[in-house]
Amino acid sequence: MNAPTPLAHVTPEIKPRPAPPALIEALKQRFGAQFSEAMAVREQHGRDESAFTTVPPPAGVVFAESTADAQDAVKLCAQHQVPVIPYGVGSSLEGHLLAVQGGISLDVSRMNQVLAVNAEDLTVTVQPGVTRKQLNDEIKNTGLFFPIDPGADASIGGMAATRASGTNAVRYGTMRENVLALEVVTAQGEAIRTGTRAKKSSAGYDLTRLFVGSEGTLGVITEVTLRIYPLPEAVSAAICSFPSIADAVNTVIQTIQLGVPIARVELIDAGTVVMLNRYAKLDLHVGHMLLMEFHGSPAGVREQAETVQHIARDHHGADFQWADTPEERTRLWTARHNAYFAAVQSRPGCRAISTDTCVPISRLADCLLDSVAEADASGIPYFLVGHVGDGNFHFGYLIDPDSADERATAEALNHQLVARAIAMQGTCTGEHGVGLHKMGFLVDEAGAGAVAMMRTIKLALDPDNIMNPGKVFAV
Amino acid sequence: MNAPTPLAHVTPEIKPRPAPPALIEALKQRFGAQFSEAMAVREQHGRDESAFTTVPPPAGVVFAESTADAQDAVKLCAQHQVPVIPYGVGSSLEGHLLAVQGGISLDVSRMNQVLAVNAEDLTVTVQPGVTRKQLNDEIKNTGLFFPIDPGADASIGGMAATRASGTNAVRYGTMRENVLALEVVTAQGEAIRTGTRAKKSSAGYDLTRLFVGSEGTLGVITEVTLRIYPLPEAVSAAICSFPSIADAVNTVIQTIQLGVPIARVELIDAGTVVMLNRYAKLDLHVGHMLLMEFHGSPAGVREQAETVQHIARDHHGADFQWADTPEERTRLWTARHNAYFAAVQSRPGCRAISTDTCVPISRLADCLLDSVAEADASGIPYFLVGHVGDGNFHFGYLIDPDSADERATAEALNHQLVARAIAMQGTCTGEHGVGLHKMGFLVDEAGAGAVAMMRTIKLALDPDNIMNPGKVFAV
Repeated sequence: MNAPTPLAHVTPEIKPRPAPPALIEALKQRFGAQFSEAMAVREQHGRDESAFTTVPPPAGVVFAESTADAQDAVKLCAQHQVPVIPYGVGSSLEGHLLAVQGGISLDVSRMNQVLAVNAEDLTVTVQPGVTRKQLNDEIKNTGLFFPIDPGADASIGGMAATRASGTNAVRYGTMRENVLALEVVTAQGEAIRTGTRAKKSSAGYDLTRLFVGSEGTLGVITEVTLRIYPLPEAVSAAICSFPSIADAVNTVIQTIQLGVPIARVELIDAGTVVMLNRYAKLDLHVGHMLLMEFHGSPAGVREQAETVQHIARDHHGADFQWADTPEERTRLWTARHNAYFAAVQSRPGCRAISTDTCVPISRLADCLLDSVAEADASGIPYFLVGHVGDGNFHFGYLIDPDSADERATAEALNHQLVARAIAMQGTCTGEHGVGLHKMGFLVDEAGAGAVAMMRTIKLALDPDNIMNPGKVFAV
Repeated sequence: MNAPTPLAHVTPEIKPRPAPPALIEALKQRFGAQFSEAMAVREQHGRDESAFTTVPPPAGVVFAESTADAQDAVKLCAQHQVPVIPYGVGSSLEGHLLAVQGGISLDVSRMNQVLAVNAEDLTVTVQPGVTRKQLNDEIKNTGLFFPIDPGADASIGGMAATRASGTNAVRYGTMRENVLALEVVTAQGEAIRTGTRAKKSSAGYDLTRLFVGSEGTLGVITEVTLRIYPLPEAVSAAICSFPSIADAVNTVIQTIQLGVPIARVELIDAGTVVMLNRYAKLDLHVGHMLLMEFHGSPAGVREQAETVQHIARDHHGADFQWADTPEERTRLWTARHNAYFAAVQSRPGCRAISTDTCVPISRLADCLLDSVAEADASGIPYFLVGHVGDGNFHFGYLIDPDSADERATAEALNHQLVARAIAMQGTCTGEHGVGLHKMGFLVDEAGAGAVAMMRTIKLALDPDNIMNPGKVFAV
């Protein structure tokens, strides 16, 4: 590997705008105990799961309990031209929540009511602080479920803001496909609605999808209407081990190309399987593993499973192990969702720098294998998991946060991977978002003209640049 | 029915901006034979399938053959602040193409190359003038197909611009879900790319979906990357007759709520069946008809069909008639796609005013039945078809275009229907777009704040208001 070049975006530009005493006073007046300046609270709201550690916390935290609260907080900040950073549960991965330009954190986690379950229409309307697990608990008795599952128990508002997805996206889509409508508070403190509960619409600009993925830079999401799905009649999960990553990935490519409606297909590389076994006291066979799930009628599930078994056999997949009871499946998927924590625990004191490239499925093996070779050569420990059915995978480089060398090496690996993905007509981020970390990559990927268009929209809707400024693009 | 109230939007506001001789001269210079001022050409480009008849045609037509042509046309018009109206095949239904503020029609129908077929990734990249039928012809040998099918053989660029859908949307989604990436020429004449060929992405604002459905008001679509699908292993189509619309619709509601992955489910009411039989010399049983199609493995198709037959039987559906050969299916679907023409021919000289509401599936019967009662009481002949699996249906009121009374009655019926759909948390337009005709409805549906946000975005990206001005909202 070449020596890493200096990477501007690794150290975020910090240009705090001070919150004047008059604003702090007004927030105290309006919000009383719902406003906090306690350092512990500010520090908790000034970081996320990213590897950034040096940004000062926000000047205070408002705990909104209603849309009116969010409106008033934005209006007060707007009067003083002070930034507002919407906050759900703090599980973002790319520095989205960091107060690089100072400002007030607007915590919506207390807005956690499921407002309407329209089971007969397969829709649900929730406040933004509802988490994905909470939502599924609350609709359990309807026979319906919400499939999107980023690793963390993220808030629905945060998931909409980052256009999140997860293991089920290969079958059910991402937040892009599953948010039907939003209520948002604009940078002027006005509450507007985007979209309806109709399944499709051609009524004007798609403001819903403009806000989905806008990372808090255009407004605050205060209500989300989602599509939900009937729980499948039959579910079956299986794991299968492969002698090489190439064999595992080629199995996936062929499965997708054949149009098998597989519900989940995750890659966990052999090194990560070792970490999982240790962390969760499992005895998974150590090999490159595909973890799959099939949804449908009993006959449909059987048919899908047979097709995939046939493909896997052609690629040297070892015998399928089936998990047919809900308990066994939960155990497997919990293991998958714990990969991040298992990896971080495998090197005490480390931070993970996560990659998130997503490429057209035919390029998946090429992209993945070259990047594995580079990571192996670097000597940096890593985990590797992937929503491979979508062409999306994550390396997590496990660095010593105090080692500038390791950080630079990891960032250089990430750079090479992103450059490769973009050359293959893929994206630098399949589901984590841009935040602070990928602002440079976004320009590489989208081009200066498209990023300029995003900036023009941002400044038209938020002329004082108070909504989560300094994220997605420099502004 | 109450007397119809005056409806401002029925007569579009015409405020032509003259095209100065210097612009015409420059267009002649740059485009030679690719530019036309012939009245017949201008008139052809100054109308669509809507019932508007009184708007003067554009000042000239540029036939773009490349992105560079589109860029130069926009740049020249921008210099003179003269409107540009992108034109595909002219099949829009709501006055989208009418030169209400004068200007130049930018015809992209000669940009009709399929640029890349990435069969192994299930994507295709096309120029905007490729039509949906042409695309399917050109990819036939790959075993893949593009499912979206508005009635007309529309251009892919036009379908993206209006967020079109059709009979397969219940299973495969609309242009919103199936456009992966675009090349667009901005109001400044710059070509930018939105999106990549990755299946999902969280890379910044979703410019792709901002342009999908923007009806030419933000820029010119010059390239479209689409998702395509493996041809299903098995396909089966069936028709079934019901004694009442309620029975037909309740069959659909239950099918959707059970999660049956039906590929198409269309309602054709008894009156429209009569028109079809006459037009296409068919002998369809005269009753309220559901026309269905199932895609999947042979066993999967059988299973779906059995489930739906069972539901239909509970709702007094007469025996299913199956169309198992491609020829029989083509005959049925051609009949469905000809409903519009069959209806128009049933009353010589008439124009159809089409409705396009879409409601949450549980409200479909309520919305439809009340509107049928109103239409029957009005005495205006109509056809009624619907993509009922999505909650979307179309009345076409067949009016004498010279009768102000009939036009007013039809518009009043449309008004009542739209008000009902909005009250049911639905939309005024499932797939036709806003154009001129639904500008008032859009405000009713989205609210003044959301429409103001659309206008702010428009004027930020197109400060001189040259891109198809006067459509979607007043500007």
